[in-house]
Amino acid sequence: MSAKAVVPLAAFLLLAPAALANQPAPPPDEPVAVDKGEASFYGDRFHGKKTASGEVFDKNAPTAASKDLPLGTKAEVTNLENGKSTEVTINDRGPYVDGRIIDLSEGSAKKVGITEENGVAPVVVEARPSDQPTEELKRKVEQEAKEPGNGK
Amino acid sequence: MSAKAVVPLAAFLLLAPAALANQPAPPPDEPVAVDKGEASFYGDRFHGKKTASGEVFDKNAPTAASKDLPLGTKAEVTNLENGKSTEVTINDRGPYVDGRIIDLSEGSAKKVGITEENGVAPVVVEARPSDQPTEELKRKVEQEAKEPGNGK
Repeated sequence: MSAKAVVPLAAFLLLAPAALANQPAPPPDEPVAVDKGEASFYGDRFHGKKTASGEVFDKNAPTAASKDLPLGTKAEVTNLENGKSTEVTINDRGPYVDGRIIDLSEGSAKKVGITEENGVAPVVVEARPSDQPTEELKRKVEQEAKEPGNGK
Repeated sequence: MSAKAVVPLAAFLLLAPAALANQPAPPPDEPVAVDKGEASFYGDRFHGKKTASGEVFDKNAPTAASKDLPLGTKAEVTNLENGKSTEVTINDRGPYVDGRIIDLSEGSAKKVGITEENGVAPVVVEARPSDQPTEELKRKVEQEAKEPGNGK
């Protein structure tokens, strides 16, 4: 085989799987639990204390407190002021202020551009069954997504 | 140059840009207008009639009616029952039923799994300034995203 023949063949063989691997997988057909409201900045007053899930609160970890989502849930938080998103694990209960739906650790708040100064931002919180680490959480998030309040 | 040397070089030259091209661009830092509510199926009773934007309504076109979004806006609609998304252009006003935020053409409804039979589904509608086709729409969507109702 000449070099001229080898190049297009190599290109095809190497590009085909690469193109497939880089194509984002279509999201699975599943319900999504979505909530819209305000996110607040957790602050560091709880750093080192225990959260509702029993973990020691680490202000730099990608975690958050939610009123509704089960402990352990993985959720995506998008700041509607700037479109920035981050993934958090729910490890605490709260916030207990009207209109607030999620309290972000300092680390997570920073990722979506919320600082101690601006403090609060409108967000969308999305949880998908297929992103959950356990079968139990998959089921719970599916249930949450199917509740009549979802999408209303 | 031998064939053996040509193959890795060709692979590198061809794969590097391919990998870059397939990487999803990070979304720009911009506000997002998000609404959550029910989507309904437009049906074909309007097929061939004029929409609010002056276009003739085509039930197969990727269009929708919105109460709030400016005519011409491009928006992403996600069905929360199955996670399916589609892009629509707002070309009409409506729906005028409580809790309904968007009326999808038959073509768009099908793409997110809404049929004439199930008729209604909880959805999230997102509009981003950078997706808009004109400067005026970019500005209007930005304004919509910054209104106090967004994220509340």
